[in-house]
Amino acid sequence: MFNEKITQSLSKSSFIRAMFEEGNRLKAIYGEENVFDFSIGNPEMEPPAKVKECLKKIACSEEKGMHKYMSNAGYDATRKAVSESIKKDYGYDVPFSNIIMSVGAAAGLFVTLKSVLNPGDEVVVFKPYFAEYGFYVMHAQGVLVEADCDEFFLPDIDSFKSVITAKTKAVIINTPNNPSGAVYPKEVLLALNDAIRQAERKYNSDIFVISDEPYVKIVYDDITVPCVFDCFDKAIIVNSYSKSLALPGERIGYIAIDPKIPDYQLLVNICIFNTRTLGYVNAPAIMQKVIQYAYDAKVDIDDYRERRDILYNHMVKCGFSVKKPQGAFYLFVKSPVEDEMEFVEKAKEYNILVVPGRGFGMKGYVRMCFCISKKTIQASLPKITALAREYF
Amino acid sequence: MFNEKITQSLSKSSFIRAMFEEGNRLKAIYGEENVFDFSIGNPEMEPPAKVKECLKKIACSEEKGMHKYMSNAGYDATRKAVSESIKKDYGYDVPFSNIIMSVGAAAGLFVTLKSVLNPGDEVVVFKPYFAEYGFYVMHAQGVLVEADCDEFFLPDIDSFKSVITAKTKAVIINTPNNPSGAVYPKEVLLALNDAIRQAERKYNSDIFVISDEPYVKIVYDDITVPCVFDCFDKAIIVNSYSKSLALPGERIGYIAIDPKIPDYQLLVNICIFNTRTLGYVNAPAIMQKVIQYAYDAKVDIDDYRERRDILYNHMVKCGFSVKKPQGAFYLFVKSPVEDEMEFVEKAKEYNILVVPGRGFGMKGYVRMCFCISKKTIQASLPKITALAREYF
Repeated sequence: MFNEKITQSLSKSSFIRAMFEEGNRLKAIYGEENVFDFSIGNPEMEPPAKVKECLKKIACSEEKGMHKYMSNAGYDATRKAVSESIKKDYGYDVPFSNIIMSVGAAAGLFVTLKSVLNPGDEVVVFKPYFAEYGFYVMHAQGVLVEADCDEFFLPDIDSFKSVITAKTKAVIINTPNNPSGAVYPKEVLLALNDAIRQAERKYNSDIFVISDEPYVKIVYDDITVPCVFDCFDKAIIVNSYSKSLALPGERIGYIAIDPKIPDYQLLVNICIFNTRTLGYVNAPAIMQKVIQYAYDAKVDIDDYRERRDILYNHMVKCGFSVKKPQGAFYLFVKSPVEDEMEFVEKAKEYNILVVPGRGFGMKGYVRMCFCISKKTIQASLPKITALAREYF
Repeated sequence: MFNEKITQSLSKSSFIRAMFEEGNRLKAIYGEENVFDFSIGNPEMEPPAKVKECLKKIACSEEKGMHKYMSNAGYDATRKAVSESIKKDYGYDVPFSNIIMSVGAAAGLFVTLKSVLNPGDEVVVFKPYFAEYGFYVMHAQGVLVEADCDEFFLPDIDSFKSVITAKTKAVIINTPNNPSGAVYPKEVLLALNDAIRQAERKYNSDIFVISDEPYVKIVYDDITVPCVFDCFDKAIIVNSYSKSLALPGERIGYIAIDPKIPDYQLLVNICIFNTRTLGYVNAPAIMQKVIQYAYDAKVDIDDYRERRDILYNHMVKCGFSVKKPQGAFYLFVKSPVEDEMEFVEKAKEYNILVVPGRGFGMKGYVRMCFCISKKTIQASLPKITALAREYF
């Protein structure tokens, strides 16, 4: 009666969202403080003071016309602020006219995929990866192709080479990575670019790197995230302020298109057209204004680091196998039993909610999100100890 | 190199947006006050005081968690407010769980089309119609089919019957209509429903009526807009606060699914899934809060009526042929020459910007938007007189 493909997709819908709902159910039964919900990346932190101040100022302003349509790409002033922030962070020049404000990174990714893919084109992702990529690619009539990572959750170049075909049109990278917390070093990105160049020559094709960067400001231990524009010939950055400014409900982000891309102006125009005709029309006006003034604000990284350290150290002490994340706010933990669904169920008995790795294309692992309150993390530790005793 | 279909579509992109850009160009040359830009429906009015007050209160509130993710369908409190507003306006019961908050009506339409259409399914629209429908249907892999209206711009039922096929899956209606200003009376909607029922029986199919209603609160002369849920067996309302609350840049609207639809819960779930996986994720949090408290605010209709009357009366006095709009804020004017592009160009010589009817599937007409300032409308009158003298 309705769309058949999607009717079928509903059953294999989001493990993350399913856990989010399960968490709400358990909280209703046991009380908020007795459920340890590590499932969804919904930062407990409030937006930085500067963001809140800006929002107040804009809401209280008597300026006329603040809620009207603007160009589909967004306010020029906001696009200029984003262009300047890229220049400041990386020393890389992206003209403001190559910036398209988007309804969050999700919209930015879908607009970009719809802009570069023709039906049947292939998009490579590295396992583990954010499960929503699969749906964005599906809606864009593309085909998702999985490549492996090495033991440090870094792209395995040989695996990448083995999956590339004449139909490969894009590669999505996500660094700092959700769910693994890995930050891809420059040499890995350059090796990836070499492999892409080879494939482009072999197949006489164009392969775009779509870099999904919502966690780029959330890195620890003096790690720096390389600028993808420095590493790739044809890169498109998709970013969001959901995590860096703790504004996930407001849907504000951007697409930045490298002017090195041949015929980049056409790609910019297609992305603007798609922003309009895929029904986004433009990124929310008020949040564009906030970004214009507060783009350089930042959530408190020390606060995140502290949470990471408490949870990571305890997990390791309990005997779990997990790599220390260099960025983002997730632990990707090896399941103590082969079938991680069994572990997820066992954890639930302790009111601990984690997301199965198969939701990220990687069975045998679970993801734990540590952007929840320190109090909850602290309170979960004895429960984690008890859970660990079931296995170690 | 990029998506081929869209690369080709770029050339036949929006006449409205093209005029919007042309207007900006002319204003830069001749000065803002010397360009009479009737092209885009970007209300000059500010949001109602109640909306601004709510926004201030929310922005200044110290409540925690206001910018976090919520369920993809939106805040329950906002969905309840929308459900109550439908009850209040029409006496019709739509459970709040059948309301999905959307990133404006454009997103609501695309989500709905992606939810009901299978590839190749046909969607009927009545000429003249909002040009963006064609792109939403294209992106949803559907086929747009045009039916005629009568001389009052009301759906011609015989024309509708003649275009309906086994592949017809949806009908988009838009009342009050952009661009004609017509409000479809109840008997026309009931006749349409009869025709749909007949076709469903004949083809053993399901045909959904998607009612795009951004102008439903902007009606004149004590006209009432019938409730589509009262008129159709399978209707879905898509609405937006862009026009009724003058918030087009903020992207806030909703989808309301009639509980009379068989298996409506599945449709609700598909729409929520699509809201997430088409990259909207959720309607902007802050605007959902505004709607929760200010959904019953309204822009000043008398203000619009005054503008309509000034422009309409003058156009008629000058000899133009135009139906008096009962709703929305557009005049759909018969071009004094067969090729309306010629008229559009002639008007431009007087710094008058209007949109060609072919942008709405109907050559030989132009659309003039009267949501611009009274001062601009007044100042345009001598220019319109001069323009008319070229023809009458």
